Amino acid sequence: MESIIVSAESKRYPICFDNSFSSLAEVCEKTGLNKGKAFVISDTNVGQLYIKEVIDNLKTYFDEVHSLIFESGEKSKNLSTIMRFYDVLLENRAERKSVIFALGGGVCGDMAGFAASTYLRGIKFVQIPTSLLSQVDSSVGGKVGVDYRGAKNIVGSFYQPEFVFINTSVLKTLPEREFKAGMAEVIKYAPIASPKFYDFLWDNKEDIKSIDEKAIRNTIRYCCMAKADVVSKDEKEGGLREILNFGHTIGHAIESVKNFELLHGECVAIGMSAAMEISVSRGYITKQEAEIFRELLRFFGLDLTVEGVTAEEVYKQMFLDKKVKDNKLSFVLIKKFGKTIRTNDVTEEEVINAINYVIR
Amino acid sequence: MESIIVSAESKRYPICFDNSFSSLAEVCEKTGLNKGKAFVISDTNVGQLYIKEVIDNLKTYFDEVHSLIFESGEKSKNLSTIMRFYDVLLENRAERKSVIFALGGGVCGDMAGFAASTYLRGIKFVQIPTSLLSQVDSSVGGKVGVDYRGAKNIVGSFYQPEFVFINTSVLKTLPEREFKAGMAEVIKYAPIASPKFYDFLWDNKEDIKSIDEKAIRNTIRYCCMAKADVVSKDEKEGGLREILNFGHTIGHAIESVKNFELLHGECVAIGMSAAMEISVSRGYITKQEAEIFRELLRFFGLDLTVEGVTAEEVYKQMFLDKKVKDNKLSFVLIKKFGKTIRTNDVTEEEVINAINYVIR
Repeated sequence: MESIIVSAESKRYPICFDNSFSSLAEVCEKTGLNKGKAFVISDTNVGQLYIKEVIDNLKTYFDEVHSLIFESGEKSKNLSTIMRFYDVLLENRAERKSVIFALGGGVCGDMAGFAASTYLRGIKFVQIPTSLLSQVDSSVGGKVGVDYRGAKNIVGSFYQPEFVFINTSVLKTLPEREFKAGMAEVIKYAPIASPKFYDFLWDNKEDIKSIDEKAIRNTIRYCCMAKADVVSKDEKEGGLREILNFGHTIGHAIESVKNFELLHGECVAIGMSAAMEISVSRGYITKQEAEIFRELLRFFGLDLTVEGVTAEEVYKQMFLDKKVKDNKLSFVLIKKFGKTIRTNDVTEEEVINAINYVIR
Repeated sequence: MESIIVSAESKRYPICFDNSFSSLAEVCEKTGLNKGKAFVISDTNVGQLYIKEVIDNLKTYFDEVHSLIFESGEKSKNLSTIMRFYDVLLENRAERKSVIFALGGGVCGDMAGFAASTYLRGIKFVQIPTSLLSQVDSSVGGKVGVDYRGAKNIVGSFYQPEFVFINTSVLKTLPEREFKAGMAEVIKYAPIASPKFYDFLWDNKEDIKSIDEKAIRNTIRYCCMAKADVVSKDEKEGGLREILNFGHTIGHAIESVKNFELLHGECVAIGMSAAMEISVSRGYITKQEAEIFRELLRFFGLDLTVEGVTAEEVYKQMFLDKKVKDNKLSFVLIKKFGKTIRTNDVTEEEVINAINYVIR
């Protein structure tokens, strides 16, 4: 089985790639998980498709396998759902050595990870990301948490999984809209990491779009390697890791203001388009370079505009984000492809202009 | 100013001793805290006595000082109170560099620390313990959390403060019952750490009881040094740190079953008496040695018996504790003074007998 190692400061762990769930128990054994109790957490969409298969496989290794399914969607990502997780853990006497498996997309992984990080001051957990977005981004790196009063991921921890298990075959059952949204996070890596990956995406865009096994596996592996590299150098977002927030400063705020009607990736795509506009207006990149980048996003079906919001309310929301420091917004801008800068000197006018650029 | 350094794996920080709050701002400056926003969290008892003084002092350093007072007592130690903290942090746009000050006893420190560990995936916090129990135990070592559905500290994190500030003069306003309860945690260090400290306590018991400045300062410093030493060697309770749980296995369960009517220290005293009984029945220590130890607890006014519970319900409650591993109870027993063993082979019969020993 193919794997990549993430060497975060607090823990070293593998990301394993396969095209089924049948090797899951084997990885549990190899990573030395305690054979006692397993808890599989999934949402209503993913649960009905895959939870039985995963539970059956885990039963070949664990003494007890419990499960919990929550209503899918960002609306569930709150402390009430976390308390339901705690209830199941409490009722079944979860111990520090017990293992939580997060079977689902980013919402599932973020919540299951947060519950794991806080129950008994930390029990073990495993990420089994099933959406493109979670496979290339949220399952790797240990950021876990929930939304609170409409503020995205405002409550959470840094907590690394025991391993990440990526079964690429599940992407075939992923709703098209979610696949598109995931592509926004995939494409995010292109301008911030390597012009080579940008070329790879352009060259293989048709195969990727049709979820060709080889093309999609290469795409995901590339993203995971890029993310693992960044996380290894800066686990707790001391600086470098912030480059992964490209498109997120404005994107997150739009997501909150739109009350989570849009998917995270959709908002990141809009946020990247807006951030590109700041780079263009500063003369960091040409209008044409930005346009070609936007073209790639549009190729995968991403809409780069938003309606029903005002620039002012989005701007206000941005100050509730974790990325605010000394009351200043933190931005990732593209200087040229493969070269980013992190800055907190973006003016209110620049931000308002950029937001207005993406409002239709 | 006197200080001790705690070298936990995740962070190195000082415990500072003084007899007023006037040097607090100075320590903030020395430890390089950001001058932005401070949030002082306190409870109704401690808040009315000291929060104004602390806020006034912090205003000489911070740009903004916000405060929040919650109803004192273990009953407040839950996620609803944590959400009130989040609300204040959110309304006042706390940032990662903002600092939470926990001004109060163990409940306050545990909750403020948990809020700090989870808000924005971790903001800074400072412990200003005002009860004897929190000065000698809970403020040092980074265990933070809340109770959940009657299960003590079941939700929480390991999260170290920026520094601990111990103003011993506040003990003079501590209710007598709380002082007594704190003495249980003080005395806990004697049999597990050093016969010298045991002798010190016997020799100075009158001065300690009357809260003589010098005697109490030496007592607290000794306990903090012992705890700092253990935490430095085992931050996340991998093994050694468990010795600090002497008296807690049965004590915690009694605390839960009694629905937190008794103070933590009172339950630890009862739990130590019960654990001693197991040590006696195994022949690790003599009946007389146990009795002399109990005498010291009684000298400080601690009642070593409990009523209104059955051994069976206490026993059942013990399995909901974090100290359960592979469904086995983890115990700290005294082999002789200064020598402990951690064991998970205590039988149900031994536990039931020990609990019955302390039920009146």
